[in-house]
Amino acid sequence: MTPTELSARLREVVGEAGLVTEPDQLAGYLTDWRDAYRGNAAVVVRPATTAEVAAVVSLCRDAGVALVPQGGNTGLCGGAVPDASGDQVVLSLTRLRRIREVDPANQTITVEAGVVLQQVQQAAAAVDRFFPLSLGAEGSCTIGGNLSTNAGGTGVLRYGTMRDLTLGLEVVLPDGRIWHGLRGLRKDNTGYDLKHLFIGAEGTLGVITAAVLKLYPALHGRATAWIALPSPQAAVDLIEILRARGGDRLTAFEIMSRQSVDFVLRHVPGTRDPFTSPHDWYALVELGDTRTDADLDGLLEAGLAEAFDRGLALDAVVASGSAQVAALWALREGISEAQNHEGPSLKHDVTVPVSSIAALVERTDRALQEAVPGIRIVVYGHIGDGNLHYNLSKPVDGDDEEFRSRADELARIVYDSTSSFDGSISAEHGLGQSKRDVMADYKDPVALDLMRGLKDLLDPVGLMNPGKVLPD
Amino acid sequence: MTPTELSARLREVVGEAGLVTEPDQLAGYLTDWRDAYRGNAAVVVRPATTAEVAAVVSLCRDAGVALVPQGGNTGLCGGAVPDASGDQVVLSLTRLRRIREVDPANQTITVEAGVVLQQVQQAAAAVDRFFPLSLGAEGSCTIGGNLSTNAGGTGVLRYGTMRDLTLGLEVVLPDGRIWHGLRGLRKDNTGYDLKHLFIGAEGTLGVITAAVLKLYPALHGRATAWIALPSPQAAVDLIEILRARGGDRLTAFEIMSRQSVDFVLRHVPGTRDPFTSPHDWYALVELGDTRTDADLDGLLEAGLAEAFDRGLALDAVVASGSAQVAALWALREGISEAQNHEGPSLKHDVTVPVSSIAALVERTDRALQEAVPGIRIVVYGHIGDGNLHYNLSKPVDGDDEEFRSRADELARIVYDSTSSFDGSISAEHGLGQSKRDVMADYKDPVALDLMRGLKDLLDPVGLMNPGKVLPD
Repeated sequence: MTPTELSARLREVVGEAGLVTEPDQLAGYLTDWRDAYRGNAAVVVRPATTAEVAAVVSLCRDAGVALVPQGGNTGLCGGAVPDASGDQVVLSLTRLRRIREVDPANQTITVEAGVVLQQVQQAAAAVDRFFPLSLGAEGSCTIGGNLSTNAGGTGVLRYGTMRDLTLGLEVVLPDGRIWHGLRGLRKDNTGYDLKHLFIGAEGTLGVITAAVLKLYPALHGRATAWIALPSPQAAVDLIEILRARGGDRLTAFEIMSRQSVDFVLRHVPGTRDPFTSPHDWYALVELGDTRTDADLDGLLEAGLAEAFDRGLALDAVVASGSAQVAALWALREGISEAQNHEGPSLKHDVTVPVSSIAALVERTDRALQEAVPGIRIVVYGHIGDGNLHYNLSKPVDGDDEEFRSRADELARIVYDSTSSFDGSISAEHGLGQSKRDVMADYKDPVALDLMRGLKDLLDPVGLMNPGKVLPD
Repeated sequence: MTPTELSARLREVVGEAGLVTEPDQLAGYLTDWRDAYRGNAAVVVRPATTAEVAAVVSLCRDAGVALVPQGGNTGLCGGAVPDASGDQVVLSLTRLRRIREVDPANQTITVEAGVVLQQVQQAAAAVDRFFPLSLGAEGSCTIGGNLSTNAGGTGVLRYGTMRDLTLGLEVVLPDGRIWHGLRGLRKDNTGYDLKHLFIGAEGTLGVITAAVLKLYPALHGRATAWIALPSPQAAVDLIEILRARGGDRLTAFEIMSRQSVDFVLRHVPGTRDPFTSPHDWYALVELGDTRTDADLDGLLEAGLAEAFDRGLALDAVVASGSAQVAALWALREGISEAQNHEGPSLKHDVTVPVSSIAALVERTDRALQEAVPGIRIVVYGHIGDGNLHYNLSKPVDGDDEEFRSRADELARIVYDSTSSFDGSISAEHGLGQSKRDVMADYKDPVALDLMRGLKDLLDPVGLMNPGKVLPD
């Protein structure tokens, strides 16, 4: 089948509205939102139903053409960007955007892959329920992408990752068959749990077309605080204090180095330091409760009083009102963007056991400063999950190109240090193109062998998102 | 290799203490605790370390001898009982009983497969943490068995099944290699999540030797109530009321038909009806909170007041003191044993979405009464998970053998009804020997095909617990 013939056949399946071939319209599908990865494709196909997805996959399999599934295209590792050949077909799921069912009694919502995360949050809120996945891109990322990357974010501490929030899946397999696993059951022990094969597989084992997701009771009370800390270990100790007092009312616990906050204050308009003098570390803490009368402010203040007594907190402000809550979160959420104003940003996303966080930061910072004296280390993230974004900016007087050229060497320092604490070199961003090769150096070889076996079992011809996840 | 040679080689690996060959000592390993399944084996091997397990698996693979992994032997579907041939080797994991690590800051515990569930609960409590898996056999079932059957129980409503409580695994693969996946990370997106292959696989894909499990903040406040209800739908509505008021403080919600409670009152010494007159349905409800000052009794009473107003509750007692709590739970936990006094008990364990529970009970009861007029239906279970144990006793004047002979027909009625609500025919008991064939009639054929592919990939020779899970 020639590319032209394939396009014609695809058009028969998805109609005129489902095919993108004009170069100016194609462009947005060929690069990620940061423009960090670029590829080519002769055609972008946008099916509107699961049956159309299955027909597209079958056609491409018959033609021997590789497919690159794509959602909101907000990933950070190039997992949804085609290669440079122009031979691959981009399979955009954004027209599968039906919310098929909301079942408040069962605490579930059934949605198609192209539904935007924020729409799921809103549909849950409309029936007094809560869908806890929350991340920066929630206004444009899709559920299919969240599933395929096993997305994390700020709600993991209390509710887990996307994998933990999923009860059932509908998947088009690489051979074009549909697996109907779309059930909203809390318990089902009738054999191997297949959904976990596809969650986090970045489209390399099949195309997720719909999912049944868990909902939770809505949170009606919240309390938020910004706290100055002497060290990462103080943050770990503060988590312990707040959990002992509030249990799972602790719904978010983010940490930021002074360097991170410095960049935000310098580059994000409208931000200001809540304190009069700088501190080495900050935490942003949120408590939540289903009850409106839970006195979370009182709980938070009592926990903070204990932290002050023990020297774990140096200063603190408890937010009063939603404007102040938003201002505090802006300090956290502005970091990634602010860092772009300071030259190239080398990003890493690692996890270790929470009990090893302090040692990780100490060992990693020392090694990085030895390698590049004056390097500016923008460490921040979901410390309650043991997850830090270990981002690096050049020294103040450093050269962009020279710094960028050392990216692999500096990544090795971060990954070696992480690995020495039994950690993971990709916590929540996945592997995509960017980490698939380096991953092989840190993965248990038996695990890697099992992964290759699974790929061969499900996609023996290798047409599902080739060049992603698995190392060459 | 002759059986005698194999025994000799196994003895070299595990030593004298690790080999059971005397018939009177073997007996306990060849049948399940209910004596519902019986098998034979020439030898039971009891390795004490993961390395020994790997050596045993390699030896048996080389000898072409099938292995049947076994934990506390408390399963309900014959999954850990060898076949009748006497050719299989039982691999008991009960000597792998070390708690390798407790990490309160990371909220994790690392345990070997042979550790008894109750020991894990106790080790968690010792550091003011909570391990939520709880079920009748907790004093003798092992973590390896809990993992291999993805155990459920009464804590699933709030904390999920064993699968949800697991962060990492160590597994001996069918080829004797060890997969080192024993990491206590909340986030790890470096490829396919392999642990879910082995959880719930009932030992057919490998031997789980250790796990990292999640711990939770300890619950310091509890409230318990026994409630009379007019219908299963009233129970679903009451869940809604209690969740709206207490959110995830609702930690258990069990339902029992009058028939179930009747049997307990008749056969379990020391039990008594909390109410003066009988009711059709009962709920046992528990709220829990990490705080001691949470006023859970007040929360429960307010919820019950609303339920009375709306006609959803007919009578209720809130337990005062641990003796009364134990007395109420005895009514729930005595059902299975009490039913044995009324002739053969045909057991089924199904789930549907919670929103379909009332319709399931209505449809299933009607069909069963049509098939066997006067049949006594002992329905009870974890209604908050959509999980009912649909157990059947013969009519009062019925004949044991005649009733038993209709077991398959009656199971079909329960399963057909469950299936019509998109439910599962095995919620928490697994498939083992007993349900593996009937499962095939209710499973999506694509799912079944994928399951067979996974089995062929991991265990191509078919020596890991053959005759279990997968239909012939």
